[in-house]
Amino acid sequence: MELKDFKKRIYIEDLHQQLGKEVIIAGWLYNKRSSGKIHFLLVRDGTEIIQCVVVKGQVSDEIFDVSDQIGAETSLLVKGMVSEDKRSPLGYELQVSDIFVIQAPSLEYPISPKEHGIEFLMDNRHLWLRSRKQFAVLRIRHEIISAIRDFFNERNFVLIDTPIFTPSAAEGTSTLFATDYFGMNAYLTQSGQLYAEAAALAFGKVYCFGPTFRAEKSKTRRHLTEFWMVEPEVAYFDLDDDMKLAEDFVSYIVQRVLAQRKSELEILERDVTKLKSVVSPFPRVSYGEAVDILKNNGIDFEWGGDFGGSDETVISEQFDRPVIVHRYPAEVKAFYMKRDPEDDRLALAMDVLAPEGYGEIIGGSQREDDYDALLKRIDEHQLPREHYNWYLDLRQYGSVPHAGFGLGVERVVAWICGIPHIRETIPFARTIYRLSP
Amino acid sequence: MELKDFKKRIYIEDLHQQLGKEVIIAGWLYNKRSSGKIHFLLVRDGTEIIQCVVVKGQVSDEIFDVSDQIGAETSLLVKGMVSEDKRSPLGYELQVSDIFVIQAPSLEYPISPKEHGIEFLMDNRHLWLRSRKQFAVLRIRHEIISAIRDFFNERNFVLIDTPIFTPSAAEGTSTLFATDYFGMNAYLTQSGQLYAEAAALAFGKVYCFGPTFRAEKSKTRRHLTEFWMVEPEVAYFDLDDDMKLAEDFVSYIVQRVLAQRKSELEILERDVTKLKSVVSPFPRVSYGEAVDILKNNGIDFEWGGDFGGSDETVISEQFDRPVIVHRYPAEVKAFYMKRDPEDDRLALAMDVLAPEGYGEIIGGSQREDDYDALLKRIDEHQLPREHYNWYLDLRQYGSVPHAGFGLGVERVVAWICGIPHIRETIPFARTIYRLSP
Repeated sequence: MELKDFKKRIYIEDLHQQLGKEVIIAGWLYNKRSSGKIHFLLVRDGTEIIQCVVVKGQVSDEIFDVSDQIGAETSLLVKGMVSEDKRSPLGYELQVSDIFVIQAPSLEYPISPKEHGIEFLMDNRHLWLRSRKQFAVLRIRHEIISAIRDFFNERNFVLIDTPIFTPSAAEGTSTLFATDYFGMNAYLTQSGQLYAEAAALAFGKVYCFGPTFRAEKSKTRRHLTEFWMVEPEVAYFDLDDDMKLAEDFVSYIVQRVLAQRKSELEILERDVTKLKSVVSPFPRVSYGEAVDILKNNGIDFEWGGDFGGSDETVISEQFDRPVIVHRYPAEVKAFYMKRDPEDDRLALAMDVLAPEGYGEIIGGSQREDDYDALLKRIDEHQLPREHYNWYLDLRQYGSVPHAGFGLGVERVVAWICGIPHIRETIPFARTIYRLSP
Repeated sequence: MELKDFKKRIYIEDLHQQLGKEVIIAGWLYNKRSSGKIHFLLVRDGTEIIQCVVVKGQVSDEIFDVSDQIGAETSLLVKGMVSEDKRSPLGYELQVSDIFVIQAPSLEYPISPKEHGIEFLMDNRHLWLRSRKQFAVLRIRHEIISAIRDFFNERNFVLIDTPIFTPSAAEGTSTLFATDYFGMNAYLTQSGQLYAEAAALAFGKVYCFGPTFRAEKSKTRRHLTEFWMVEPEVAYFDLDDDMKLAEDFVSYIVQRVLAQRKSELEILERDVTKLKSVVSPFPRVSYGEAVDILKNNGIDFEWGGDFGGSDETVISEQFDRPVIVHRYPAEVKAFYMKRDPEDDRLALAMDVLAPEGYGEIIGGSQREDDYDALLKRIDEHQLPREHYNWYLDLRQYGSVPHAGFGLGVERVVAWICGIPHIRETIPFARTIYRLSP
């Protein structure tokens, strides 16, 4: 073989159509083991890993020596016959006839099967992506994002890409990243919601889906400075409609991953019984009922406060699927949320808490649609009116009941994959101490 | 009716299933005309616009008066019988029996059918989105983005969300937005390509798709400071493969919009004959041949320079579909592009130029995969080596031929919609002078 033979390559995931035929695959040596006269090369090409069997006497001595000497992450072309192998998860293997090495690392590949510290792995994230577990997590992330888009597209929601640069700081500047914008101050968005509201009144049903930014100095396993959020917003929609949409949405995502990413969940050794029960409807408890749950579990919690991570865990542990907590005290929620007409202390808000201690994955609400009430909140929160004139316009010209929510992608990936830390749920995590690679 | 009857509403786009039945729709008054005893209300709900016929004597006097008095963008519920109307593009209309006004603007709606200046419309972008033409452009944008994702997902590319915050400035800081990142300098990404290369060597075929940023002080109709770019990257891929992928991709997008968004293209009065010819293969000309085209058209162009917008127009006018220009002088292209083994002055680069003067929509290349050659370029371009160590690692551990490209979404939307200025192709445009709403 020669280098240009890579143009004849077939992807490993497509080899089931080639049983009994000679093919060329193009990939990297993932791992190998030897038993004297046979080398078993595990070769990956980004779609799957296949076992390539090199038998002394069945290949030239030169090729046998090559397969003896090559180290991890050598790039290579392998020619061979596709044969059935019922012991492998893939179902087939390659009986090698030829190997062409493209590039053999002159240094030892830094990530070995032994344990490495997390900082070392994150420093080598560009290589760590090649490991089996990271491969599985990010393929599941891909599936989750596809499911998100399919869910809304199938329901005729219009995608609205809301701006990243915003002129105003909706909830204070302390957690915002700022940039000089040709002499003005611009802030990186924390949510596309206000813009999605404008679009919902134009398109009926919309969603935005993009990166959002928080300059929080938190080092918890749930926080990134840069994360992806999807935010549907619907005109003529109330809190009940919003909760229904949220539970249908979360169930759809989970059932899709269970159906499409079985092998990746197996690599992660995920207990899928806990995912199978994630179907609509979800249990719904009011904030007041949630406080009672905490008290009944011996937690000294006072009505009026927001739940912390450990509170959320206690509440969610009562249920076998996500739970929706609704109607929070308005004091702990955002200015744009509509008050409960039956109790003015409450906001028409809802959060979805994931099971197994993964905490809040969705936050949403019915929005304040009355001009005067909204103006009052803006003043109460001491927000600069001039930045909200356009947002107030939405209550001036054809205001309607409307609602929406936001779902944080990385938290959902962590939950579905069953991994403890959010930093592995995105290709290149950004945290308070990490800006590279 | 009363407010809560909005929960019974049916979307206008679904009314074809309701012929002869009485329904409630929930929307906004888009426009109206009257002929004495009949009011024709055009009501939009974000999915479609329907004509609602209010006949004196067939509704109460009160309802007839309401329909006489309501102004543009009043939000309202309309009850009526769905009946066929072959004259309307929708095919049906509503024979009104009842109207419930939700909110009647106390001020006149600022956007009237008369001509407005562009700055006024951009200042009122949150309302302008409701206009028929903007509605059509952004629904086509939605379709283009769906087509982009479907194209790559159907071909088993893995979505890799590359980071927005980056530590280094690949091509100088002059066009970068910077932010203070907990005491470090972070820059907003201009391309996910380098990260996509790392991912391609892990996943084989990947794409990133997100917002990118350029602090360019250009005020042309082709520039935004914030725009969306999709960037596929494939391992074991050369320049020819890259050009094939690009032409298949662009054809797929255009044919999808033609098939799915006929009515929106009609609203925009787009000459679709010019889109129908956009099918693979595209003509391919080398840079040298492109220079000859310019000279033959009387343009004084010297070999070695980059093409300007007017040069691109002259080249693309020779063809009835997009044209691919390949193998540019390395001097005018980026450091990471592989040199042409047959002529070291050239880079294995390619651009796709759209017809009708819309200019470059794709830029791509085969990447330098040799460690020493890449290191030399990094030094020649005076880039800080310490920021590129991870990128060099990709040539140290299992380097392979690989290639990719980037497509700018807004330029493609402008071209397919046939609109002259890019600012209408994104929901909330950001330009050198505009950061709001």
